[in-house]
Amino acid sequence: MARQSKREEIAQAALREFHERGFNATGISDITVAAGAPKGSFYNHFASKEECALEALARYAGGLRFDLLTTPGRPALERLRAHFEFLGQDTTDSGFAKGCLVGNFSAEVADHSTDLRAAVKGGFDQWASLISQVLAEAQTAAEVSGSLDAGATAVFILSAWEGTLLTARAQKSPAPFEAFFTTVFDVILR
Amino acid sequence: MARQSKREEIAQAALREFHERGFNATGISDITVAAGAPKGSFYNHFASKEECALEALARYAGGLRFDLLTTPGRPALERLRAHFEFLGQDTTDSGFAKGCLVGNFSAEVADHSTDLRAAVKGGFDQWASLISQVLAEAQTAAEVSGSLDAGATAVFILSAWEGTLLTARAQKSPAPFEAFFTTVFDVILR
Repeated sequence: MARQSKREEIAQAALREFHERGFNATGISDITVAAGAPKGSFYNHFASKEECALEALARYAGGLRFDLLTTPGRPALERLRAHFEFLGQDTTDSGFAKGCLVGNFSAEVADHSTDLRAAVKGGFDQWASLISQVLAEAQTAAEVSGSLDAGATAVFILSAWEGTLLTARAQKSPAPFEAFFTTVFDVILR
Repeated sequence: MARQSKREEIAQAALREFHERGFNATGISDITVAAGAPKGSFYNHFASKEECALEALARYAGGLRFDLLTTPGRPALERLRAHFEFLGQDTTDSGFAKGCLVGNFSAEVADHSTDLRAAVKGGFDQWASLISQVLAEAQTAAEVSGSLDAGATAVFILSAWEGTLLTARAQKSPAPFEAFFTTVFDVILR
């Protein structure tokens, strides 16, 4: 049990460190120090920094509140907005820092790690697929024009979200978020 | 002259290395090896890796073909499309790798370097301002509805472009680019 709990502490610390510093700037000792564990213990639980980053990414994706997209009994576009408002609040609360770990790993590591790229792709695919389902439901309910390509629009909205985090971090301003919500909900999905 | 030319070689190599590897994964020795220069010579030309990255970013921004946005005698939306088609081709040619250095630095370094964040912000601001001018011209020419907020739409389109590079790199597929062009030109700016 102690061993399992130490692994859990290292995994949680790794997610925080990767999200705050990025993949390359995070050393294994940053993770073990943050977890209050001896450096050597890292390799009792993870074969490599990359394997640990894969687990951090899976944990991060688990906190993206995909459930907000599928809440029963709520109009489809309201669910989509609630999902992005939750994610935007998280970024605003951190002073427009950190962004999205999926996008950060795509920017920093996708070209250099086959496994991390596959995991990032899997995260984006699942996310876009859920958004596409919400858009299709909105079309069925006549909340959104049936002429939109739900799949392509979902990929676009997800891309726009990831880029919005990049520009908001550079600006340290909510303006890119405001532009996202206005353009997505009042123009694209009007 | 020899000294000036060595500085130029180091600056060009730095841009290539930062774009390919990212900021943190690029060591000063990666830059000097790529430039065919002795490692110690780096500090004859740059005070720090950060100062060198600022110059790489300025050079990169100089290659973004903002001139395509302002070509005289061409309809505004055609100019906007030509600009992003040029940038997309560059990414396609590199096998959906590397992305945009401005966005990459925003993802990786904006939270950790005040100077690099200011430079990234300056790059995004200039870019969004040029796109906003093109959109205002398109509105004057009745190519685009006058009801769009040109400034917010410009910020959104730039964010969407940056995010499109992240998803295309993860997917190693042109699908996110296709979603970008369809949604921007056939939905938002229809």
